[in-house]
Amino acid sequence: MKFSILRDQLLNGLNDVMKAVSSKTTIPILTGIKIDAAEDGIRLTGSDADITIQTFIPVEKDGEQLISITTTGSIVLQARMFNEIVRKLPTNEVEIEVSDQYQTRIQSGKSDFHLIGLEPNEYPMLPEVSEETQITIPGDLLRSVIRETVFAVSTSESRPVLTGVNWQVKEEGLVCVATDSHRLARRIVALENLPTNVESVVIPGKSLTELSKILSDASSPVNIYMTNQQVLFKTEDVLFFSRLLEGNYPDTNRLIPDSYQTTVKINGKELLQAIDRASLLAREERNNVVRFSTLSGESIEISSNSPEIGKVEEEIHVQELSGEELRISFSAKYMMDALKSLDGQDVIIQFTGAMRPFIIRSIHDNSILQLILPVRTY
Amino acid sequence: MKFSILRDQLLNGLNDVMKAVSSKTTIPILTGIKIDAAEDGIRLTGSDADITIQTFIPVEKDGEQLISITTTGSIVLQARMFNEIVRKLPTNEVEIEVSDQYQTRIQSGKSDFHLIGLEPNEYPMLPEVSEETQITIPGDLLRSVIRETVFAVSTSESRPVLTGVNWQVKEEGLVCVATDSHRLARRIVALENLPTNVESVVIPGKSLTELSKILSDASSPVNIYMTNQQVLFKTEDVLFFSRLLEGNYPDTNRLIPDSYQTTVKINGKELLQAIDRASLLAREERNNVVRFSTLSGESIEISSNSPEIGKVEEEIHVQELSGEELRISFSAKYMMDALKSLDGQDVIIQFTGAMRPFIIRSIHDNSILQLILPVRTY
Repeated sequence: MKFSILRDQLLNGLNDVMKAVSSKTTIPILTGIKIDAAEDGIRLTGSDADITIQTFIPVEKDGEQLISITTTGSIVLQARMFNEIVRKLPTNEVEIEVSDQYQTRIQSGKSDFHLIGLEPNEYPMLPEVSEETQITIPGDLLRSVIRETVFAVSTSESRPVLTGVNWQVKEEGLVCVATDSHRLARRIVALENLPTNVESVVIPGKSLTELSKILSDASSPVNIYMTNQQVLFKTEDVLFFSRLLEGNYPDTNRLIPDSYQTTVKINGKELLQAIDRASLLAREERNNVVRFSTLSGESIEISSNSPEIGKVEEEIHVQELSGEELRISFSAKYMMDALKSLDGQDVIIQFTGAMRPFIIRSIHDNSILQLILPVRTY
Repeated sequence: MKFSILRDQLLNGLNDVMKAVSSKTTIPILTGIKIDAAEDGIRLTGSDADITIQTFIPVEKDGEQLISITTTGSIVLQARMFNEIVRKLPTNEVEIEVSDQYQTRIQSGKSDFHLIGLEPNEYPMLPEVSEETQITIPGDLLRSVIRETVFAVSTSESRPVLTGVNWQVKEEGLVCVATDSHRLARRIVALENLPTNVESVVIPGKSLTELSKILSDASSPVNIYMTNQQVLFKTEDVLFFSRLLEGNYPDTNRLIPDSYQTTVKINGKELLQAIDRASLLAREERNNVVRFSTLSGESIEISSNSPEIGKVEEEIHVQELSGEELRISFSAKYMMDALKSLDGQDVIIQFTGAMRPFIIRSIHDNSILQLILPVRTY
């Protein structure tokens, strides 16, 4: 194997595949990145066994020559070392050549590296995913969907299936739900041409977080292929594979109340900032719980009281307040997460009493629903 | 005590004094910040017993009213909590009022905090420093002097005096020296009107690092007052006190060679980058040691070889190479620190054989001298 490549192009590709490489892996070959040089371009592959990312750098793009291939072939190089070397090379021209015993020479300007590579045949094959069951979604929309749901997955391994986001294909579109059993985030995406042969998969939250780092802000389409054990996200240059979580995802519909006793319309940004301040005093002594109370007139109060430190009261004028009086306590963090996912929009909050879950939605549309269980404090 | 103040002004002041507050202090009152409201303005004080910082915010500055004092007085408030509250307040108008039992009310817009303060009389007095022994130095120059020396202090407490920078008043000016006994940094500052009644102090490296964060890039003068136990750095608005280190600082002059066998003039930035790359391979197996060799012709080679990982060779063309052939090994980190302190200037490196300390200077002037002890590798 011998080729020369523009350093920037190689770095871009490495940036993506490095997201799959974990320093904690117990499989030695996965500490490496696989490089495949073919006639049409270079493929880089990184994996931590759960996530596998492959990027493709073509020989030529938009009329510019990015790579010159002398001989094809494959090698596996230590990921972190190779990435750091490429990042620090002195010129934008890099030549990579593999000789006997996987000895790999990396040259740029007067810089001359010899790395000991690993046997490429030991590197695992890409997961097999049939190209039948396909969903197509713009990249920027997919990023939003991930951002609006993934924060609510469970971080505890006691119910592994809750560490993932449940994607269901339904009549109303793609329904994405995450819950850690204390709060829930649901996003419905109206998509056309949804497949009919898949109903429900659970994608690890960690995979979605890494995926969203690779997705650009552009609306270029991402094709999604699902089988029983794997999902593949395919963009123009990147293949992103993730293992799926096994087990039945709980039916969360019954959690969402269908009647309400108190309704508040409020500026989401003002509410977020008031809770942020109130949580300063709630953090140490009170497990980050703040109180929400309706006041007479068109306003509400956010408060927190820690006998050792002090107390805080925040009054906020609301756009609408209807139904019964209410005093309710909840996690400041959960509320802030929910409001952030709604991007500071004006929100409607619907309560069913101080001991029942309440929901938060944008006043503009119903595509995002956030649900929080209150905390009993008195 | 009752006053109102512009939030930005209060934040600026807090930013400075927070640098002295340590979360690890064992003295409870020092977890707080002292606020003194007088007729002329507000003083904020923070301290970790080694460093004490006091900032002054005047009632009026450049014709703009910054503070309105209703009643004077003092209070101590939990530093981290108070700082975070002020940072997150909703408007730029802040009112602070202390009532009985050090109950402190902080109000801004519809945000209303009540904090439990601490007894201000328990807060330690400022160290006493006579205003006699004074050095005046522009703030930006002081920042440079710190940057060029402080990295070389020892991080080990086995010889505490080496964790500080030695400042000596000599005929040639202020001589600042730091060494961890493996390398040495010396900066000579030609200053006029140096005091005659002080010869040598040792300022803790940590104090200088914190001080340089407070100094602006401007050339406004800093007045320095020294006694046996304390040094005070005084800018327009800030008093910065630091404890001095006790003990005799070693005489480092004898370490600096006075004759040389090999001299190299080289582009400092190119050398820095080559060593940075070579150190990638040296890091894990070889304790970050790289080799420097003179080549025939006007060039040198930086190399590193780790049998398990690979090797690297970097050739650099030099501006001048004279004297004997040389192969020498040294810590890549020490060399990179030294070259960074010289800001990428062209440098002259003077060697006295593979086992003797060598020195690095700018080719333009002698005010900075960096010395490194080589490592024996064969």
